[in-house]
Amino acid sequence: MRNVCVVGVGMSQWGEVWKKSLRQLFVDAALDAINNAGVDRLDSLYVGCMSSGLFVGQEHIGALMADYLGMRGLPAARVESACASGGIAVRQAFIEVASGISDIVMASGVEKMTDCSGGEATFALATAADQEYEVFNGATFPGLYAMMAHAHMHKYGTTRDMLSAVAVKNHRNGAKNPVAQYPFEIKLEQVAKSVMIADPLHILDCSPITDGAAAVIVASEEVAKKLGKPYIRITGSGAATDSLQLAQREDMTAIKAATIASERALKMAGKTIKDVQFAEVHDCFTIAELAVLESIGVYEPGQAGAATLAGETALDGKFPVNSSGGLKSKGHPVGATGAAQIVEVYKQLTGQAENGRQIPGSPKIGMAQNMGGSGASATVHIMEVA
Amino acid sequence: MRNVCVVGVGMSQWGEVWKKSLRQLFVDAALDAINNAGVDRLDSLYVGCMSSGLFVGQEHIGALMADYLGMRGLPAARVESACASGGIAVRQAFIEVASGISDIVMASGVEKMTDCSGGEATFALATAADQEYEVFNGATFPGLYAMMAHAHMHKYGTTRDMLSAVAVKNHRNGAKNPVAQYPFEIKLEQVAKSVMIADPLHILDCSPITDGAAAVIVASEEVAKKLGKPYIRITGSGAATDSLQLAQREDMTAIKAATIASERALKMAGKTIKDVQFAEVHDCFTIAELAVLESIGVYEPGQAGAATLAGETALDGKFPVNSSGGLKSKGHPVGATGAAQIVEVYKQLTGQAENGRQIPGSPKIGMAQNMGGSGASATVHIMEVA
Repeated sequence: MRNVCVVGVGMSQWGEVWKKSLRQLFVDAALDAINNAGVDRLDSLYVGCMSSGLFVGQEHIGALMADYLGMRGLPAARVESACASGGIAVRQAFIEVASGISDIVMASGVEKMTDCSGGEATFALATAADQEYEVFNGATFPGLYAMMAHAHMHKYGTTRDMLSAVAVKNHRNGAKNPVAQYPFEIKLEQVAKSVMIADPLHILDCSPITDGAAAVIVASEEVAKKLGKPYIRITGSGAATDSLQLAQREDMTAIKAATIASERALKMAGKTIKDVQFAEVHDCFTIAELAVLESIGVYEPGQAGAATLAGETALDGKFPVNSSGGLKSKGHPVGATGAAQIVEVYKQLTGQAENGRQIPGSPKIGMAQNMGGSGASATVHIMEVA
Repeated sequence: MRNVCVVGVGMSQWGEVWKKSLRQLFVDAALDAINNAGVDRLDSLYVGCMSSGLFVGQEHIGALMADYLGMRGLPAARVESACASGGIAVRQAFIEVASGISDIVMASGVEKMTDCSGGEATFALATAADQEYEVFNGATFPGLYAMMAHAHMHKYGTTRDMLSAVAVKNHRNGAKNPVAQYPFEIKLEQVAKSVMIADPLHILDCSPITDGAAAVIVASEEVAKKLGKPYIRITGSGAATDSLQLAQREDMTAIKAATIASERALKMAGKTIKDVQFAEVHDCFTIAELAVLESIGVYEPGQAGAATLAGETALDGKFPVNSSGGLKSKGHPVGATGAAQIVEVYKQLTGQAENGRQIPGSPKIGMAQNMGGSGASATVHIMEVA
């Protein structure tokens, strides 16, 4: 296996992007990444996308995106693991470059979610849950994560303010991110006073519905050196799964797939979680950030809420989490999120985070944790300054 | 890069399988492959599937299938390139084993197409075409392939009987395949007299709508040797794309993505098309088989029709094509087809083809060519007796 690096990153506009189609969003991010990396070719393309079929009536987007990028002929495929699709795209690019089959691969993610009605979007998102047992009985994701939140509160005494503190912190970071869908700060009291979605989760506990794309250029270290620009090694890649059904899990308060994926990624990198200095994690709901931080071992079970409330995961805290603003403030175009997390970790490790969003102390090791459904799929990548 | 082998294969029942769900079909094929290979673990799983979201309201099937296979935790992802999804699954497994990251990977494909009405299935399939330019204007796949057939007839003088000969030959082979959806022979005159779908294509020019799954166990040669069962090397893997829109192609009578993918696969294998002794090719419509055979260089442009009519591609011909019965007779569960092609090439190369379907002369080198849409995605794999 060869060393694998991220040599450039790109983002489209994120938000309710009425004037850009699925393919346009992808091309915007892809060209941004190509320009950023300064590469003159790609050997292969992966497009992470959860449900372009249900959102906009278009499958087969690997070939479509290669064509619209002006690279007809390029090997290209879509990968899908619900909201972990972007993380899987990065993992496939990592494996392909590691194998030696390709030298320069684009890992991307895209989703166009606002071109269908709210009801249709909710149905499309629910296809990440178990159709026969959960969706058939009326469950959708706010309800599933609400059950996880209740269980966490019951088991560990997690409070309303602890959940709110996740949203407040992520909005504070997102306010400094030029691509964020909701780039403004919110106050602790606002979260609890916002519209109830599924008790105990209010609207400000939930990530939004977003149009957007992200792209990452993954290359061999040999290519990275020749490009003469900042590059970051991907030293660990882990993926894991769990039952789609929440009811089948051993423990509703933890994300076991995230635990296994992080163990696999850390083992490959030859590191422990204590070596990691910051992370982008999958905060689709506020409870998810707490459960993930505990599942990957940053905090003991039940301790992440108090730590967040105490500011430990803030930009200037001892373990900054979601410096990008996370899914909560930056937005959550489901198939793009995992790739966008890599964009942020790359920017932090190369000192390119905009608008005072840079984590202090020039961190050298970061992590990106992406997941799908209520945690049935997870990917974790460890990235290190070369 | 390490040597990569196919060490076992499996199939579910194929056809209108009313009593089995998407997940059950997958598990049937997966367990069949695991038993066939005699492996006691998997390191990773790829599930090729075109549109489970539109067909049965279920995305996120990588994790779902890992769970239902009893392998919760396994890294698993869905891959999608329309009807080339199965071929892409095999390619990803090939790359992952070649890289050294995994030793034993399952490449599978599955589609459950009959659980929705005909109109819905036609809509789901049409998402493999360009939604904004083709589908919006009413085009569906029979119409697109009909245009290719007309162009081929006009340019090369391809006749009605030449198209019919493809269907007759594939049904003759499929009649000997225990999993075939339509395991019976048809006569040349029947094709032209069958119901017209999109001129010049009649119903017997078209592959059917099918429920089914296929699975292939891909392993390093080191593992293959230890298993002590017949194994076949994958010596070449190629993938390529073209515009989704037929109208944007340089030539409607050829499948350029298949040309590029086969060149890439043959180059990796260090072979030319003349070294290949038989092939499974993507005969979603009769015209497709002729266009592909010309595009991959088995025949000169315009020559495949006469050769088929003369019996050259029959089981006992000089270049047997679709010994399995092809998509036409065996069936076409769109995401599974590419994996099932590998199953057939494996069976032929190990002398395990059932019911007198074995190609005479113990061939040593075979090819599987899979494609998506009207040819915008193509994969080609070269397989050789070790």
